[in-house]
Amino acid sequence: MNASPLQNILRKLSAFGLDSLDIFNARGRDSSAAYMARLCSTLLQLKGEASSIAIAQEIISSYQGFSDEEKQQFFQFLHDDLSADDNAVNKAIHVYQQSKSQQDLQGLHRATESPRKELFRALNTAPGGTHALIAMREDLLGLLAAQPHLKIIDFDLLQLFKAWFNRGFLQLRHIDWQTPAQVLEKLIEYESVHEIQGWPDLRRRLEDDRRCFAFFHPVIPDVPLIFVEVALTGQISTNIEDLLRQPPSDKPQKPKTAIFYSINNCLLGLRGVSFGNFLIKQVIEDVAIQMPSIKVYATLSPVPGFLTWLRANLADLPRLTVETRSLLQRLLDAVQAQAILAEAPKLQELLIRLCAHYLVRAKSRDKPADPVARFHLGNGASLANINWLADVSDNGMRQSAGIMVNYLYTPADLTRNHEAYEQSNKVVCSSTINKLLSDK
Amino acid sequence: MNASPLQNILRKLSAFGLDSLDIFNARGRDSSAAYMARLCSTLLQLKGEASSIAIAQEIISSYQGFSDEEKQQFFQFLHDDLSADDNAVNKAIHVYQQSKSQQDLQGLHRATESPRKELFRALNTAPGGTHALIAMREDLLGLLAAQPHLKIIDFDLLQLFKAWFNRGFLQLRHIDWQTPAQVLEKLIEYESVHEIQGWPDLRRRLEDDRRCFAFFHPVIPDVPLIFVEVALTGQISTNIEDLLRQPPSDKPQKPKTAIFYSINNCLLGLRGVSFGNFLIKQVIEDVAIQMPSIKVYATLSPVPGFLTWLRANLADLPRLTVETRSLLQRLLDAVQAQAILAEAPKLQELLIRLCAHYLVRAKSRDKPADPVARFHLGNGASLANINWLADVSDNGMRQSAGIMVNYLYTPADLTRNHEAYEQSNKVVCSSTINKLLSDK
Amino acid sequence: MNASPLQNILRKLSAFGLDSLDIFNARGRDSSAAYMARLCSTLLQLKGEASSIAIAQEIISSYQGFSDEEKQQFFQFLHDDLSADDNAVNKAIHVYQQSKSQQDLQGLHRATESPRKELFRALNTAPGGTHALIAMREDLLGLLAAQPHLKIIDFDLLQLFKAWFNRGFLQLRHIDWQTPAQVLEKLIEYESVHEIQGWPDLRRRLEDDRRCFAFFHPVIPDVPLIFVEVALTGQISTNIEDLLRQPPSDKPQKPKTAIFYSINNCLLGLRGVSFGNFLIKQVIEDVAIQMPSIKVYATLSPVPGFLTWLRANLADLPRLTVETRSLLQRLLDAVQAQAILAEAPKLQELLIRLCAHYLVRAKSRDKPADPVARFHLGNGASLANINWLADVSDNGMRQSAGIMVNYLYTPADLTRNHEAYEQSNKVVCSSTINKLLSDK
Amino acid sequence: MNASPLQNILRKLSAFGLDSLDIFNARGRDSSAAYMARLCSTLLQLKGEASSIAIAQEIISSYQGFSDEEKQQFFQFLHDDLSADDNAVNKAIHVYQQSKSQQDLQGLHRATESPRKELFRALNTAPGGTHALIAMREDLLGLLAAQPHLKIIDFDLLQLFKAWFNRGFLQLRHIDWQTPAQVLEKLIEYESVHEIQGWPDLRRRLEDDRRCFAFFHPVIPDVPLIFVEVALTGQISTNIEDLLRQPPSDKPQKPKTAIFYSINNCLLGLRGVSFGNFLIKQVIEDVAIQMPSIKVYATLSPVPGFLTWLRANLADLPRLTVETRSLLQRLLDAVQAQAILAEAPKLQELLIRLCAHYLVRAKSRDKPADPVARFHLGNGASLANINWLADVSDNGMRQSAGIMVNYLYTPADLTRNHEAYEQSNKVVCSSTINKLLSDK
Repeated sequence: MNASPLQNILRKLSAFGLDSLDIFNARGRDSSAAYMARLCSTLLQLKGEASSIAIAQEIISSYQGFSDEEKQQFFQFLHDDLSADDNAVNKAIHVYQQSKSQQDLQGLHRATESPRKELFRALNTAPGGTHALIAMREDLLGLLAAQPHLKIIDFDLLQLFKAWFNRGFLQLRHIDWQTPAQVLEKLIEYESVHEIQGWPDLRRRLEDDRRCFAFFHPVIPDVPLIFVEVALTGQISTNIEDLLRQPPSDKPQKPKTAIFYSINNCLLGLRGVSFGNFLIKQVIEDVAIQMPSIKVYATLSPVPGFLTWLRANLADLPRLTVETRSLLQRLLDAVQAQAILAEAPKLQELLIRLCAHYLVRAKSRDKPADPVARFHLGNGASLANINWLADVSDNGMRQSAGIMVNYLYTPADLTRNHEAYEQSNKVVCSSTINKLLSDK
Repeated sequence: MNASPLQNILRKLSAFGLDSLDIFNARGRDSSAAYMARLCSTLLQLKGEASSIAIAQEIISSYQGFSDEEKQQFFQFLHDDLSADDNAVNKAIHVYQQSKSQQDLQGLHRATESPRKELFRALNTAPGGTHALIAMREDLLGLLAAQPHLKIIDFDLLQLFKAWFNRGFLQLRHIDWQTPAQVLEKLIEYESVHEIQGWPDLRRRLEDDRRCFAFFHPVIPDVPLIFVEVALTGQISTNIEDLLRQPPSDKPQKPKTAIFYSINNCLLGLRGVSFGNFLIKQVIEDVAIQMPSIKVYATLSPVPGFLTWLRANLADLPRLTVETRSLLQRLLDAVQAQAILAEAPKLQELLIRLCAHYLVRAKSRDKPADPVARFHLGNGASLANINWLADVSDNGMRQSAGIMVNYLYTPADLTRNHEAYEQSNKVVCSSTINKLLSDK
Repeated sequence: MNASPLQNILRKLSAFGLDSLDIFNARGRDSSAAYMARLCSTLLQLKGEASSIAIAQEIISSYQGFSDEEKQQFFQFLHDDLSADDNAVNKAIHVYQQSKSQQDLQGLHRATESPRKELFRALNTAPGGTHALIAMREDLLGLLAAQPHLKIIDFDLLQLFKAWFNRGFLQLRHIDWQTPAQVLEKLIEYESVHEIQGWPDLRRRLEDDRRCFAFFHPVIPDVPLIFVEVALTGQISTNIEDLLRQPPSDKPQKPKTAIFYSINNCLLGLRGVSFGNFLIKQVIEDVAIQMPSIKVYATLSPVPGFLTWLRANLADLPRLTVETRSLLQRLLDAVQAQAILAEAPKLQELLIRLCAHYLVRAKSRDKPADPVARFHLGNGASLANINWLADVSDNGMRQSAGIMVNYLYTPADLTRNHEAYEQSNKVVCSSTINKLLSDK
Repeated sequence: MNASPLQNILRKLSAFGLDSLDIFNARGRDSSAAYMARLCSTLLQLKGEASSIAIAQEIISSYQGFSDEEKQQFFQFLHDDLSADDNAVNKAIHVYQQSKSQQDLQGLHRATESPRKELFRALNTAPGGTHALIAMREDLLGLLAAQPHLKIIDFDLLQLFKAWFNRGFLQLRHIDWQTPAQVLEKLIEYESVHEIQGWPDLRRRLEDDRRCFAFFHPVIPDVPLIFVEVALTGQISTNIEDLLRQPPSDKPQKPKTAIFYSINNCLLGLRGVSFGNFLIKQVIEDVAIQMPSIKVYATLSPVPGFLTWLRANLADLPRLTVETRSLLQRLLDAVQAQAILAEAPKLQELLIRLCAHYLVRAKSRDKPADPVARFHLGNGASLANINWLADVSDNGMRQSAGIMVNYLYTPADLTRNHEAYEQSNKVVCSSTINKLLSDK
């Protein structure tokens, strides 16, 4: 029905006399790399002219049609040809070292900025430009392992994204069954903690006793950047299956507890821009106002690194009998969830204690080794409970022998906990956990 | 009805246990400068923690309560204490000069960034933060004449605003009588080219044969950043009074011409971030689609610098009779619009020719001296007509002896004209204008 | 820009082959009356066919172009030619009287319905039809005094409007400074109790310590049917000038009282369809939820019939000295508000007592004679205070010597009061009023 | 989270002092029938008082809790106790017969209206009242076969619904993937012509080359009253499977044809209120404006009554050989779609001719016997094609041996065709069909 984007661009180019620029004639004639290079340099010359939007659109749409190899060539071009000018940098260094003035420091700052950033800003002026740049970074991230030198491009993009996705520009939206299907299908697509099994499952997660909140950026209205799923319950949930399968009719008259049971980022290309801490605290604020009956905020969280850590450290664990050690080894050797489930009960008490140890004592650069623990404890939450056979799914059994934990978000303690965590690496635990840790 | 912002902040601080941080206890006890400094350094330490929002809010609301002197102290603090660390810069220079690697170049770039920018980004996370920062820059701009060393702070803010107000993040909105009064009153407030005389005048400018478009930023939904007023007419307008006073009943059956008769920026604090060129071209695109009968796009524009230039250059003008020169002098000496109006007719032909000369030949750094001419010609428009007694208001008579001009926006020529203007300072004129220029 | 409605209709008629109906050829050829009659009968024959919309549109737009005389002819046509068929009625009576069945009773009901109602329903299918019919009834109401036989048409329209404007179809909207100007200007236009003096006055009435609510019908989104203005105050207001002039800065920290100080119907053509009682009670419900600090709901109301009643009953008032009587006469004879104001103070006590008497004891068909009293007491409010010199405007002085009253809406008493009022004509008064009534 | 509706009502009742009415005390004490009767008579007495809303809510919520038997009792109560008063009717007849005045005719009309209608209007004032009444009528329709005397209640409801769901009050909405899930799931629920196989199938029907439009009533925003599904194709579709299975990637560059392939009513309780003709013509108008490339509007429609008619009329068909007749009989005897499919090919030519005959010549009260034919031909469409093996689903084979037809909506002919159909029962056919009919 609508003209294709390409037709639209061509129409506009000709409407604004852009074809007189001769650039677009090169399309198809030059190699894609040469054509792209020419477009980019033209765009950088136009310096914010209105006609630059059409060129930005052309670059984006050309990129989107690129093969993997062409994309890699494009990134290589960004690396080689769009770095800051060495001469100009040296000159600015010299000027600054002479004067030591703040103004010349700013001059040096400007001289060291790569033209890539200017290019990305210009690309962002195109309709859909922001989303396209995020997708471009996703491509780039996939290349970094093989091409680590491209990291400098990633660094430029990340800097821009951190500015553009500043918390001040994000909108919190309540997601429910009134939300457009366009957005809802993104939840199904991006939920990776506890997969959504189609639309009826999605609908259940949006019933009266559930809440879902997401951050959106105004120029990407159809894709949540991050979303959190919340269950309103009578007491702290200790089993994920029970929570997911609970019929809406079982909902508590007056819920007292909000359980954050899943939090997911949607756009891979925004990796490194953190939203989660803002989202959880904003949701707590909003829920507190809307539902004064809710007094407790907690998570029901996986322990993704537990068995991997155990496998690596089994040999070093003290005070285990030979028999226990061999039971543990059998469990760690099991591949099927069923097999793990068969072994686990004999080791219940031990595994719980080892998990407490893992979460609190196992460190990576002075912070908890477990990534989920690091996130919640870093937010100022405390470690409240370790739940046995809380997630018997394949994934749950394989990563943590079915163990899940509750992190407690006590609003009045969050800042103090966060400070203690940041400054002295302190992990705040409930008395239950402390008892597990001290038990011999 | 609502709690005051201060109460809200205090409530939140205590809800999240922020009072445990001890910072806020200093409020009232320390001097405002010391308190502010402490808040800022705490905020910079928190590095994006959710609780940082409350501190950002406190800084903004403290600033808003500041006297002029306190504000100046605050800017001085930003200047003195929040500049990049000299040692770190020197170290980064050294590292870069050793390796010459792009990675170390980025390191140098980071080291030269002032912590002010990080502070401003953190302040932006507060609700209303963006708008508050724009107001802060407005304050700052007012201080620069007396305190030119503060320009480095302005530079930081401008860089951020250019990123945040990237065209890709702006929304074009059609303003009409369905628009909330909250927004409409901003038009009355900010229209400074042809003042809006209250609500009935505003309403007339939003009738069926008029259009008004504005750019908005999603986080400042109530204030247009820039707006343009358009009249849909049968032919090119040559007199501003006729245009403003024309009753809606006189509207053409099928308009052929869109006259841009006023364009205004609203937020002083965004000075230097240019929107106008994007706005005009976007409006042309939209009007072209919605009203295919419109074939001609032109402005009816003031010539703000004409008489000032004439006054300065009268002595050097060649080939004027003594009598003419003295008539001109009388006109230039007149202070009242009425007096100018009395003198002008005798000089009509001469003034028109001089105005053509002024617009096309008078230069400032190789570009037209007149700021309005510079804007439209820079956008790729051409100079079409010089209109006699087109604006007999006080202002119109005093700045240009009542002359106004039409710049023509011919979509198909915009890019070529823009290029010619940028690269070879070429000013494209209609044959009428060219004739005026060549006449002896 | 847009095609005229006429062009649109013609386009549609021809698009759907309606011109083949030959009806429209008569336009301009036949007399307007004959043409209209033909259109109406065609419309009634089409019985809900989709093409009937175009004919309905043509009837409405023809009517809108009619002179007063043509309109009167049109109503006469509706009277003469579109009444129920006498023969059919007689037959239906006969059938019903034979069988006495409910089914035949319905048959009789149908037979007695005038085809006018069917016509009005068909006209309502046109875009803007509802609003056009309301305007038509406004015209009709203006004719009734001279042409009382047309009342039967009014009766049909009123029946339809009561069905269409059922409370279930109305939407309550909060009106504030975010409301489109299109709607706000209607407030200025229709406020007739305490005139709005332009946009700044309107804005003041929409500040933080004021509320405005209106009922809308979904198909007339730009015109409120009725709106009520509310002031949030510390205590019950006793003077309208003070209330209207109070600067927003004087607003109470925590308001305790909601004063309904003006309620206005907007569409004359909806006379007889009552919204006011629903609106006030709905607003009380909403305010109670949003602002729990508000405990008292009261009006500040005029006494429109007081002096007129006094004039008519002065001779019969018992126990007045000759001197008092002559003072009263002077006051009643005064034409200028100033003159009344000069006389009033000497009679303050007496006038207050007489006003209490008027409001409570003066009756018209067993209910209070004062129309405003009838409205509020009928809603279940009670009469609380009589306020001296509460409205010294021309209008206020002339209708009630400046007296205004407070009716109190005590939620818990409304139904009981209403019942007592309906069943035993009881007027509930405060002890203050009762004391005034019993004083000799 | 929210209070139950019951709690809300109780809260309101007590807030407005309604409990003083003593009515609600009877809840639970009296039989449900007695309680309901008492509520209804109270409601009728309150005559539009604001407090009546609470009673209306109580009646509706009581009804919703009723067993089937209680519902039946309630309808019986409406039948017995809320009919027009016989004495009053007789008196009004007498008065009218004396005067023969139009005023007294209106008096008779009023006297013959059943109080039920007034009750239903009062129930409609409750939040959700309209939807509740529609559901009530759905219950009632289910009882009519067994209790035909209740038809008089149905008649009252239908009259009201025709007034309330007047075309002038309906809103056309475009349904797409941006529509709230809440509404989309209604499409899945109510599509009964070509069942929607879950969300992916729904999504496909809302892609770029499909359109879906629905009528909504403002007070029932979540449920479409009727919706139509449209495919934008290159040429007229002749097979429903092809249409439903066509991948979006196959969409035509510039569609020329709009195929209406399914139209569904959603609310059973609105049976008898016709929307379909308005919907189709409105959609044609809208599509014509938005997609000028579309020149042909047609349906792909089932022939639901074909085989049933054939079965009933086989014996009377002239000129069939014994062999053909027995082949036909075998086909008509087949129960499984597969079996019919096996027989059909041998009879292709004959069945097509018989189907043409059925559609054009088989009549019920002078109009086509086939209900779908009656609908489209009544709208002014013409019969264009008969398509062989166009729907081989179970349903398609069983009702019409897989035949589907195209009705053509030619905008310029609709009114003429409609008139000819209404006045002289004319069925307009394409030459292809006419040829089939005249073939011996």
